[in-house]
Order: sequence, then C-alpha cells, then structure tokens
Amino acid sequence: MIIVMRLQATPDEVQKVEQEIESIGLRPFINPGVERKVIAVLGEVDVHKADLAEHFSMMAGVERVELISQLWKLTSRSYHPEDTIVDVAGVKIGGKQLTITAGPCSVENEQQTLEVAEAVKSAGAHLFRGGAFKPRTSPYSFQGLGEEGLKILAKAREKTGLPIITEVMDTHEVELVAKYADILQVGTRNMQNYALLKKVGATGQPVLLKRGLGSKVRDLLMSAEYIMAEGNNKVILCERGITTFEDSCRNTTDINAIPVLKNWTHLPVMVDPSHATGDWRYVGPIALAAVAAGADGLLIEVHNDPSRALSDGPQSLKPKRFAELMGQISKIAEVVNRQCGTGS
Amino acid sequence: MIIVMRLQATPDEVQKVEQEIESIGLRPFINPGVERKVIAVLGEVDVHKADLAEHFSMMAGVERVELISQLWKLTSRSYHPEDTIVDVAGVKIGGKQLTITAGPCSVENEQQTLEVAEAVKSAGAHLFRGGAFKPRTSPYSFQGLGEEGLKILAKAREKTGLPIITEVMDTHEVELVAKYADILQVGTRNMQNYALLKKVGATGQPVLLKRGLGSKVRDLLMSAEYIMAEGNNKVILCERGITTFEDSCRNTTDINAIPVLKNWTHLPVMVDPSHATGDWRYVGPIALAAVAAGADGLLIEVHNDPSRALSDGPQSLKPKRFAELMGQISKIAEVVNRQCGTGS
Amino acid sequence: MIIVMRLQATPDEVQKVEQEIESIGLRPFINPGVERKVIAVLGEVDVHKADLAEHFSMMAGVERVELISQLWKLTSRSYHPEDTIVDVAGVKIGGKQLTITAGPCSVENEQQTLEVAEAVKSAGAHLFRGGAFKPRTSPYSFQGLGEEGLKILAKAREKTGLPIITEVMDTHEVELVAKYADILQVGTRNMQNYALLKKVGATGQPVLLKRGLGSKVRDLLMSAEYIMAEGNNKVILCERGITTFEDSCRNTTDINAIPVLKNWTHLPVMVDPSHATGDWRYVGPIALAAVAAGADGLLIEVHNDPSRALSDGPQSLKPKRFAELMGQISKIAEVVNRQCGTGS
Amino acid sequence: MIIVMRLQATPDEVQKVEQEIESIGLRPFINPGVERKVIAVLGEVDVHKADLAEHFSMMAGVERVELISQLWKLTSRSYHPEDTIVDVAGVKIGGKQLTITAGPCSVENEQQTLEVAEAVKSAGAHLFRGGAFKPRTSPYSFQGLGEEGLKILAKAREKTGLPIITEVMDTHEVELVAKYADILQVGTRNMQNYALLKKVGATGQPVLLKRGLGSKVRDLLMSAEYIMAEGNNKVILCERGITTFEDSCRNTTDINAIPVLKNWTHLPVMVDPSHATGDWRYVGPIALAAVAAGADGLLIEVHNDPSRALSDGPQSLKPKRFAELMGQISKIAEVVNRQCGTGS
Repeated sequence: MIIVMRLQATPDEVQKVEQEIESIGLRPFINPGVERKVIAVLGEVDVHKADLAEHFSMMAGVERVELISQLWKLTSRSYHPEDTIVDVAGVKIGGKQLTITAGPCSVENEQQTLEVAEAVKSAGAHLFRGGAFKPRTSPYSFQGLGEEGLKILAKAREKTGLPIITEVMDTHEVELVAKYADILQVGTRNMQNYALLKKVGATGQPVLLKRGLGSKVRDLLMSAEYIMAEGNNKVILCERGITTFEDSCRNTTDINAIPVLKNWTHLPVMVDPSHATGDWRYVGPIALAAVAAGADGLLIEVHNDPSRALSDGPQSLKPKRFAELMGQISKIAEVVNRQCGTGS
Repeated sequence: MIIVMRLQATPDEVQKVEQEIESIGLRPFINPGVERKVIAVLGEVDVHKADLAEHFSMMAGVERVELISQLWKLTSRSYHPEDTIVDVAGVKIGGKQLTITAGPCSVENEQQTLEVAEAVKSAGAHLFRGGAFKPRTSPYSFQGLGEEGLKILAKAREKTGLPIITEVMDTHEVELVAKYADILQVGTRNMQNYALLKKVGATGQPVLLKRGLGSKVRDLLMSAEYIMAEGNNKVILCERGITTFEDSCRNTTDINAIPVLKNWTHLPVMVDPSHATGDWRYVGPIALAAVAAGADGLLIEVHNDPSRALSDGPQSLKPKRFAELMGQISKIAEVVNRQCGTGS
Repeated sequence: MIIVMRLQATPDEVQKVEQEIESIGLRPFINPGVERKVIAVLGEVDVHKADLAEHFSMMAGVERVELISQLWKLTSRSYHPEDTIVDVAGVKIGGKQLTITAGPCSVENEQQTLEVAEAVKSAGAHLFRGGAFKPRTSPYSFQGLGEEGLKILAKAREKTGLPIITEVMDTHEVELVAKYADILQVGTRNMQNYALLKKVGATGQPVLLKRGLGSKVRDLLMSAEYIMAEGNNKVILCERGITTFEDSCRNTTDINAIPVLKNWTHLPVMVDPSHATGDWRYVGPIALAAVAAGADGLLIEVHNDPSRALSDGPQSLKPKRFAELMGQISKIAEVVNRQCGTGS
Repeated sequence: MIIVMRLQATPDEVQKVEQEIESIGLRPFINPGVERKVIAVLGEVDVHKADLAEHFSMMAGVERVELISQLWKLTSRSYHPEDTIVDVAGVKIGGKQLTITAGPCSVENEQQTLEVAEAVKSAGAHLFRGGAFKPRTSPYSFQGLGEEGLKILAKAREKTGLPIITEVMDTHEVELVAKYADILQVGTRNMQNYALLKKVGATGQPVLLKRGLGSKVRDLLMSAEYIMAEGNNKVILCERGITTFEDSCRNTTDINAIPVLKNWTHLPVMVDPSHATGDWRYVGPIALAAVAAGADGLLIEVHNDPSRALSDGPQSLKPKRFAELMGQISKIAEVVNRQCGTGS
C-alpha cells in the first residue's frame, strides 16, 4: 500500500499517518519525493487492505491511497499459476478442449426441448443449456416453467448424455436447481447477489458466473472470490456483453475481457455471443471472435423455431445454422491450439 | 406497435406479417410510405407487447419493430397522473415536503448508532438509515451485524422517533428485516433480483429501490413494476450514480434522471449523493444539485468518526458538516417550492 | 513515479530498472514490500513523466507504473490556488458573479437574432451566444451562415452591449471569428483538435472549451493545458453532457464534474444544460442543479420560435420561460453565495 | 417518419400537426391506434428529415418522432449493396483479400523507420503506417517530426514498395500530407472535425476514418457521409476501441461493430487492436478476433525497440512477434473465407 500525501500536507499530518501505520503493526517508509510525500506501508497487508486503504484515505493530509496488488486472491493467477479445469460429468472446461454449450433460452415444453437437445448434440455441443427460472425485465413476460422445466432438462440429459446448465435466481431455489443441474448458472443480474453467491458456493457444484452488465472485470473476479471463499473452486466465468453508449446491438461484447481474464485468473472463461449481441445475425461472427481471442468455451442459443420462442427469439440460431457454425468454430479452435471435438 | 419492413421485403413477406397480425386478433394497417413498407398494428396491444414485438422482429422481411408506448404501466404517470405520496409512520415522501434520510453506512455498535441518530435528528433529518446486512464487493470486508444491527436500529428509532430504513439483501431475510424496518431498501446490486422484488412487494411495506449501476431509467421503472405488480404501491425510487467512463468519482450521478423520472412516473424520487460520488467533499454540492433538480428527498451518509467507519468512511459527512448542509438544503428547497422543515 | 514489479520479477530485472532510473539522472529507492518489489523514482520528474512512465512500463519484470501527481500543470489548482477570473469586456467569469450566456443555437437571420438578444438581455443574461459556423452530425443539415452570421452577432452586441461568444471549427477560420467574437468557443467535437487548440491559444482571446462527449475530466484539463501552453490563461471550461448507456436524454449531464473541476483547477467552469439534456423540459431543472453544484455560469439556448429553429429547436427555451428561470437561478445563486445580478 | 402524439393530445393539436405536414407538401395518415394517435408522414422525406423531425417534435401534443430509415445515404448498403473495394496503388481493401497495415506509432528517425518497414514487409504486411503528425493528449509529449517524418515515410515506401498511411490532423496540412501519403488517416479525436472531413474528401485520395472514442457506429457513418458527399468514395472505416466503464484495457474493442458495419454499409472496415487495447499482450488475441468477426483488415503497431519508442511503446509488437501473428492471421482468414497472402 502506498499513501500519497497532499502537496500541502503538514509535517504533523505526515507524522500522524506514520503513527497510525505503526499502531496497526506495520512499518511506514517515507519516499522523500521532490513533488510530495509518499509513504509506503511495509509488512503483511492482507485481504482486509481495502478497508485499511479507506481508513488511511480519510486521514488529514492524505490525497489518496494506492493498493499495490489486487483485492482478489483465490481467483488470482499470481497465487495459482496453472489453469483450473472444471470437470462436469466428464466434460472438461478450461483445458485444451473448447467447450460448447447450446440450447434454447427457455425450456418451453418437452418436445421443443428434446428436439433442440438432439440437434445440438448431433452438431457437436458438449453441454445443454435451457432456462427453467427466467429473469425477465418485465413482470408480464414469460417467467419460465420452474421445476417442471428442470424435469424436462433432466430428460434431455438422459436422452442425449449432455450435462445440463441452468440458471438459479434465488437462494430459496438453490437446493431444487442443484438437484437437477450439472452446472448452476448465476445470471448477469445476480452477479452481485452475494447471498446467492455464497449459497451456490456452498453446494460445491460447478457454477457458471455471468458478468454483470455494468460490472468491471475486477468486480467479476471479486464475485467469483465469494464463491471460492466457500471452498468451491469449480467456477466458470462468462462474458456476456456490457452496457455502453453504443446501441446498435443490445450490449457490447467486451472481447478484450477474454485475454485480460486469462491473464489475471486461472479460472475458465466462456462467452455468450447470443445475449451479448441480441441478434442472431451477429452471433456467428462474435462466436468465432471469442474463440480466436482465447475463450475456453461458448454459450449459444439455439431454437428450432425462433419466431415462436417464448423468450429471446431474435438472438437464437436455427439448428442448421448452428451446425454450420460448429464447423467454423472447430477450425478457428485449431488455429489457436484448441480442440473442439466431442472427444469421442 | 409499428413494424418496419426491410427495403427489399417481398410482397409475400409483407402479406405473411399481415396474416400473423390478424391471427392474434389485431388489425394490420399498411402505411404506403415511399421509402419502405411500414405496418401499424391496430387494436389493444397489452403488457405482453414486448414478447409480441420480439415475435414479429423474427419474421422474414422485418427490419425492426417499434413500440409506441412504454412497457411499464403501474409505474407510469400516463396512467396515474398525480404524484404518489408514500407515508412512513407519518413522514411523507413525494409531496411538497422534501425528505432527508441520514445515518451511517453500517450499524457498527449501539453507541455509534445512537450518537449519529441523535445528531441527524437534531440537524433536521426525517428518517434514519443504517446497514445491518451489507453488500460488499469483497467477501473479506465487514458484512454487517445482521439481526443485532436491526435491534440497534430499532433502539435508535425508539430514542429519536425517526423511522428507519435498512437494506435487505436476500429473500430469506425479508421477513426478519421487515419486522424492524419502516422502509425496506433494495440495493443497487439487487435492482434486478426479481425474487427479492416480488418478496418485498408482497410485504406491503414501503420499499426504497436503488437504481442499478448499469441500469437505464427504464429498467429501474420495470423493476418498480415488479414490486407494484404484487399490489404494493409504496415504492420510492433512488438514483445513486451510474457507471460510466468517467473515473474522477466512484460513479456518475445521473442528475438528468431526476426530471426524467418525475416526468415518466408518479413515484417519489430520492438521490444518494454519498454513494454517487464516493467522496465527502462532493456530497454537499451534489445534494444541493439534486434538490434543485427536483428530487423528493436525499439519502446522506453521516458518521461521527468517518476515519474509523467500518464501511464507506470516505463518503461520510461529520454531524457538524451535515447540519450546515441541512441549512443550505432548506433554502434550495424553498426556491423550488418545497419544504424541508420537520413539520413540527 | 512508483514502479511496481511483477510478483515473479527476477533480481536481475529489478537491477536493470534501477540502472535505467540512474541513467536518466534520477534515484531509485526500493520499498522492500512483502508482497512484491516496489521502486520509487526520486528526483525531479517533470512534465515528460508520461513518456517516462511508458518507457519503464515496457521493461522486463515491470507490472505497472503509477504516477504520483497529475499530468496537467498550468491548469492545476496545486500550482495556482486562487480562482482565475476571466474578464470579457467587463463581464467577469469565475468570481463571485454567476455568468449567464444565452441565445439561439444558430444565427438564422438578423431579425431573429436581434429579437432574441434583446429578450435575453432584458431577462438578465450577461453574454450572448449564437452559432455562425455549426458542427452538424449530418452533412445535409444547416451548416450556419458563416461570416454573415458573425456580422449579425456583432450587430446584436452593438444593440445590447452583451459580449458575444461563438464557435470556431477550423484553424482556417480562427482569425475571422476572432475579429468578431469576444469569446472563442471550441466545441465538444473539437476538444482534442490540437491544431485548433494551439491556434485559439495563440490569439490570446478568451476561449470557452467544451468537454468532449467521450472525454474524461482529466482529458478536458489536458486540452485546456494546450491552450494555456500558448501563453493564454483566459480559458473557461464547459461541461455539456457525456455519452453513457442511458438514453432517456441526449447525453448525461456529469454534475459531479463541477465540484471535481473546482477542486482540481483554478479555471472557471460553465455548464450547458441545453445540449446536455437535448430537451427543453429538462433545461430548467439541470440549470438550477448546475448552479447549486457550484458552476460559475451557464449557457442556455433561447429561441423566439423553437419549432422554426434551424437547429436544436427541441432544447431551446422561449424568452418568457428563460426570464422565469433567471429568477430561480438568482435565488439559487444566493444560497451558494454567488450573485447573478447584471452588476448594474 | 412516424409522429407519436401524447396520450393527452387534443384533437386541435392533432389537426395542427396534420396541417403542418400538408403545408410542406407531404401527406399525413392517422393510424387510429387504441393507445394513442400515431401519424404517419407519407411522401418523399429526403436527407433533410432530421431537421423535419426536430421541427415536428417541438409541436404541441407531440410526444416524439421516429425516423423510419437511417440518416446516412451514400454510405448505406441499402443504396449500394455491393462491397466497395478501395484500391491503393494496387493493394485492394474491402474484397476477398485481408489487408494488414503495420508500422511504428511515430516516425522517429530514418533508421528506425526503414528497419521496421523492412521487417513488416518481410512478415507479409501490405501497407506501412507511421505517424509524422501526432495527436498527443499532453502538449508536452513528442508531437511528431512533421514534414521530415513524411519524407522518411516516402523513403520507406521507395525501399519496400508498401503504400503508406499516415495521419493528417489539420486542414492546413492536408495538401502537404496528401503529397506523400497513399492513404490519409483521420484520427479518432478528429472524427467529427467536419472541416477536416470535407478537405480530405475533396482530395479524392483514399481516407482511413477512425471511430471516435465516444462515437456511436451511426455517428461514424455520418462522418463518412461527409467525406463521400465531397465525391470521394474511397473511404475505409476503422474501429479502434471505445470508451466505457471498463478500465482493464485502455479502451474497449467494440467487436460487435464489425458485423454491424458490414451489415449497414458497403465500405471496408479495419480494426486497430493496438490502440484498442493499449497493451501488446492483448494485441494478438484481439487481432485474431477481429479477423474472425469479419474485419477487412488490421492496423498493428510494430516497433523494433518498444521500450525506446517515443510514443505508444506499451502497445507495440516486436517484429518477431508480429511475424508469428501473421501466420495465425492467415489461418483465421482462411476459415472465414478470406486471403491474407501478399498476392505475389
């Protein structure tokens, strides 16, 4: 931690900061800069450093406090240099294998779900996705089938062998969803629902954590830290578009976040081009871009009849287009030294 | 609803859209524009129109669908022209009275809480705020005292007579918090935690809903709609800063949102300059600006010893500075035809 | 300057950084932190420090370089603690007086211009604004009357005595505009047109510099630094809205920028609520908010027939509404210890 | 154009809007919606429609005006369905060929420039880039060699045969830069410097137009429209990162903008991953992503000694790393059906 004093700080103010540093068992070191006083704080500053930094920033004469290292720890690559590989019923996420998740936005009924599941399976997807509990901006929109939807998802798994991933929106439903799902998804609107993060962390099951629309990469890592702090290291991060001034797409895919996250953390990083663009015409290019940039996997919405979809139809691909896209994805994967086969 | 066809749409595509409109009991009307075909959808399009718009936007030949009126209804001023006034144990929010809420970010212990409560009461505050359950970005930061904190808040109410407002972060805790609080606060990170919105809506108690960091004004209204759809019209909206590229303050106070919200909705609008700036030096100017722009009230963090605060010290005012600010607030209130007295 | 080394930096890498620091005549000091090596650079690091920081950030083993003080100098309050007051033909901007500039977006013809000028003068405005050269997003929109417009502005000044402010868009036109204008306006789209900044700086005339839509407060100060580096300290800054994800108004007024700028710089700060909102219904509330937050003045668009205006009609006030607003502005000014009389 | 009336609009207000439509030679058609009155404007609404829309939006009883088609025309794919291919001394931009531009941020001296030019040529680049006039945020940073730099660039072209692209920052310098450059670059800070756009348009030479940091895709097209309105259709668009709340990279690469632009316009689209990330470690992944998403070319900064670069060292690749990247780029190009050979 580095404490930068104001240009006009008095000797007395500097001294008080030094005493305060010593009073908490650390050592101050004054860098005798020409411009202004800068005090380095020596000693073990632990994970509580954010609170400490706030404390010092309130003291008289202090201009600001700079933290030298990041606030996250369990999620940091500095402390865990090797890539984490999350194993989901044999499907590995985060290693050499590129992992493709596909399926409809919502589980609408058994027939639709099984049809799409068969289609994405035969196109080469590794995981099946579908929403039973749906977070909708409007209270009047379709909210999902609930447990009925979970049962249909389980049937789809039975038929295709694909592990399933589905969203959990509330602490009350974690137990229920965990009974059916292979991966628990925490959605973008709940990225900082800390009660939910703790609860899914405590299940020990794999968790896919979607980045909030207005959340920085560093906030995403802090939310992942909440899950890992519960002893659960099976966390998969997901970039799904952020909110910016650009309005030609629903959101702006933060493609930079992929190499940044791969640099900062050991956790696998997936990308959801369907939600990030909101437009099926752009899903293909952005899916390929994500793989080229180093993503560990993709979440793609596929629906057998998008114009009849009960949610997010405009961003869903038809199975045929998805199958074609899988062909291109595999080739891009090879160029960046990944595999996209089903491993069979 | 207006359906704009592509420049290259075929007569067959136009006809199919017309048939689809009729099939759901509405009437199509083609505006014979020179540039391109535009189809108006006549008839009662209800609150499900967002889903309908998605549906049509997927049809062949359609470029885009424009909704004519907004998606919110219960929160809309069009349907409820008069200002809603929320009555909290006799304190009125949303009328001629300007309502000031003040208190520490976190409830830390009884002595601190009671001291601050007395101080803000004597400076003229109408409501007392303090966090018992704290949403913190880092899992290692102080998370609040929980029920112990609620009990201390209740004591502060007993001593000062000020109704209390405190945050609830999880559906599991709604019942508990509702037992102590006069106003339930839904924080910025939970603005789209729909399970929580429904649950606080169902209590029938006043709810203060903070805008999400990355949420548009229209999304805030949709979240309020969730609460009102439960039959609870005691909703107070709160602007508390949004996330933008500007980094000189923690967030950017969206001052424009105040007159926009007053125009679009009948619900009261409060502003939290402490979180919106993150810096006590800027709290005063932004508080005054919010009142001048037409806010119905303010939430201001006050702490008797900010540098010892367990959370958000840097943005807290000392009681003396708060009292001075109250003087200026009262005068600005008068200019914009509001009152800020305690009514006694 | 503080150089933070990577956790894995080798002793050799650290040594090379130290040698490089010495080779440019400065002294390295290693802060023996527990977490990682941090090297302070001691000695006079001047305005070229940005280039130096880039240089060190490229060296092996370096994680990042933190600058201790800001990059701006002439504009900084640290080096010039007293407020700068810009005198424009007797009208003072930046002192106790609040300065109101009003007028139409574009100069359209002599009659309209003189009418509006008389109206704003009698309502108490101190300066008259109007565009002769108009930056329009579309090449097909009205581009302004050019020199003819400047002549009309000069007539308005003659009739009313109000000094005039008008935009200059190109280095070729600086001389021409400077012949007529009392204040040269550099528009939001040209905030980083450095050739133009240098040229208006060299005139020695007062310059109003509008913040770019996508520019941080610190970038605005760097652009002001370009003008001041030409020996011209008559610079007035202007907040006019930034581009964010919120789309309920044309732009988001960054109200926080007012106290931040007043803290960081000695230059006067004006606000343009007309462009910042793009909607006449919101101009009044935001104008009052800006004054309450500490702005030194306002730019307000006034048109005698907004629906016939050749540009920006939707954000213009009619003279009657402007006169009413001036009454409220004066009262708010008093609360924050400013005067808004015409000084007569 | 569609005019949406307020819910409370009076019959008289509706009639006045209809009369106004007729008075300008167009025909009104009222869509008798249940919710509120919607008036379609029939007839030829030309490029002045933005002004017209503003006019109607000011009339009493009008809520808002929706334009049915976009404001750009010459740049629109609707009016020019085939891809535009810009030919620069035999190098084609916008067709099947992927075009790679590489070189140092600044021209520093002859030796450095020629070394880098030879290196990028032998790695397979098609165009050489380098700045002689440099837009720097700080007036104290290196501002470029000016004409001396242009002469060095011309020598590099002579030696390598690579056409050169370099930035022009001011109307005064257009003639000079056009004498040496094959492509005139308009930088991000000048995207809305309309005087400059007109002047480079008038040269008839190819222009590379970089998107502004705070500019929407639609604003980029309007700026391109300025150049094309001068009769110059040799316009190349360039995405180079936008400003958002995310601060882990210098800017956020708007990867979605690539397929959006390819959909909306016939002009070629290049991407500059060096400026968009500001960090050489991320240039490779983002370059590959851009090609995968459908970009027509790339601009990549290459420097033989980045830590000694006079500008933007941190984002420059060494020649060896650039050559490796070219290998990957070629392979990705093939997957998306493009070629990246030098055509020899």
